[in-house]
Amino acid sequence: MDKILLGHGSGGKLMHELIRKYIAPFFELSSLMDSAVVSINHSGKIAITTDSYTVSPIFFPGGDIGELAVNGTVNDLAVVGAIPLYLTVGFILEEGFSIKDFERVLISISSSAKKAGVKIVAGDTKVVEKGKGDGIFINTSGIGIIPEGVELSALKIESGDKVIVSGSIGNHGIAVMSERNGFNFEPPVLSDTRALNGLIGDIMKEFAPYIKIMRDPTRGGIATTLKELSLESGKDILIYENAIPIHNTVRGACELLGLDPLYVANEGIFIAIVKAEMAEKINEKIKSHPFGEESAIIGEVTDGKGRVLLKTSIGGTRIVDMLAGEQLPRIC
Amino acid sequence: MDKILLGHGSGGKLMHELIRKYIAPFFELSSLMDSAVVSINHSGKIAITTDSYTVSPIFFPGGDIGELAVNGTVNDLAVVGAIPLYLTVGFILEEGFSIKDFERVLISISSSAKKAGVKIVAGDTKVVEKGKGDGIFINTSGIGIIPEGVELSALKIESGDKVIVSGSIGNHGIAVMSERNGFNFEPPVLSDTRALNGLIGDIMKEFAPYIKIMRDPTRGGIATTLKELSLESGKDILIYENAIPIHNTVRGACELLGLDPLYVANEGIFIAIVKAEMAEKINEKIKSHPFGEESAIIGEVTDGKGRVLLKTSIGGTRIVDMLAGEQLPRIC
Repeated sequence: MDKILLGHGSGGKLMHELIRKYIAPFFELSSLMDSAVVSINHSGKIAITTDSYTVSPIFFPGGDIGELAVNGTVNDLAVVGAIPLYLTVGFILEEGFSIKDFERVLISISSSAKKAGVKIVAGDTKVVEKGKGDGIFINTSGIGIIPEGVELSALKIESGDKVIVSGSIGNHGIAVMSERNGFNFEPPVLSDTRALNGLIGDIMKEFAPYIKIMRDPTRGGIATTLKELSLESGKDILIYENAIPIHNTVRGACELLGLDPLYVANEGIFIAIVKAEMAEKINEKIKSHPFGEESAIIGEVTDGKGRVLLKTSIGGTRIVDMLAGEQLPRIC
Repeated sequence: MDKILLGHGSGGKLMHELIRKYIAPFFELSSLMDSAVVSINHSGKIAITTDSYTVSPIFFPGGDIGELAVNGTVNDLAVVGAIPLYLTVGFILEEGFSIKDFERVLISISSSAKKAGVKIVAGDTKVVEKGKGDGIFINTSGIGIIPEGVELSALKIESGDKVIVSGSIGNHGIAVMSERNGFNFEPPVLSDTRALNGLIGDIMKEFAPYIKIMRDPTRGGIATTLKELSLESGKDILIYENAIPIHNTVRGACELLGLDPLYVANEGIFIAIVKAEMAEKINEKIKSHPFGEESAIIGEVTDGKGRVLLKTSIGGTRIVDMLAGEQLPRIC
């Protein structure tokens, strides 16, 4: 058997075989119970998040949908200051999907979870008829515990705060686009998908009181994330085009494709708004981590009314708004 | 605008409008943070579960995909003895899906969550191109706390234990099938979708030490669930066809459609395996709840080797196995 059949989603014998043979070996699923039962030694705040992944194609330079699904949810927990613990994973498979590809995705999920130090505790598999899905969609949900005293909020943002971006922008979106369109950039652009909980844990341990808020700029890119933060805080955010880390190949690819890199999706960087006097130290700390080597202070918060302003490299200033339409569908 | 566009999943302006206008008003989403932050005053065991819903059609007699998605996940938590607290909801929408239908589903999710006493704390919306999905798929994940001392396990099952089914079987599967095929049964067969945490909470409060395990027999019906329990416990389970509660219209519909009601999906009943001497009392308690009026003791556990045996109404005995292929695709 090399293709997914409708019967694999029936709840019957085929589904049990699929789970026993392919899924269970990769995960520490606690039997076939309706829910996983786990211990949590923490009385206080927890973080909960969910994300569905529909990226197309499912394999792309630097990653795949499985890795993305684990890292994306881990990162959503990490940026609110949580220590990610447990993930669930739900598959919607299309009839006819290759079991070999499914296995490849499962291996990727399993190894990404191990790398990130999280456990996948519960799962679900549904199958839809051919033409009613697209190979594989994955939902991951996750929970993490928030250490006492940690409270990140856009409402803490003040004039003078600095804006840090922890790595170069646009890599994930361009990697997926290049695979989708058969482009071969030289050097190839790789997705930046990676789990940021290690890096974020390090800086939170040392600098938590100085970090106002963090966010991972995925769909919609750093422009959309900064716009959200400016709206939520009621401040203006001024960024310097020259200061934004971006690889030359990504810049070139964006020009070729007519894309603005500020709106291109990222999967392995975060934006932090931090107290000015600690900005350099925090940035240095991020740079000392293998996942933060390209970190940079790219701007600052000013009094204002919820705008994002870009100082361009030729000296002008332009207003950066949210993406109006659809730039890159199914990028994550 | 009356249709979902690809841009509604872009992370940009359209998506923010969709969330602000349609999604946020129905839920207590904590801002647009990457993760929801909630308090949990419980040190000990928690239950975590996930399920994707791909039911077709999305509206059927007695319910819809939204109600199903809430109740199904609430029930998965309740049957392991947990008190459900928080749910996440992830949408995968197909380009062109009717916003009116989406709104109807959102209202249904919101009111089901209120009825069940759970909070929807985090969400996600993705859009795929026309022909790459099927209107709407929903993932719900949930967490609940497990009161101290509660530990349900198939390993506690002993010979002599009784098997209770909390309501009549087959209603959900037949309701969906009748809608799918344009059948009009008289009286109509309605899905039994409902949240069981209230009923289960009541019996757990009074009888927890006597309840070995519970499970909700969804996909694959009570046959598959009983087979799982017999395999996990290494015991035989003997059930009496005459004792199994089933409506005449469901029985008739199954005959018409060539289905075995033991394999038809349920969404509002549970199976409990309980200590023999308390079985009558537990069954009476279930019957006293509006969602358990048709509860019945349908069989018992015997020494054996992981088989399910059905004593038929004409006196024979047949072995009940898991569903081999696919009986009813996309029933939940």
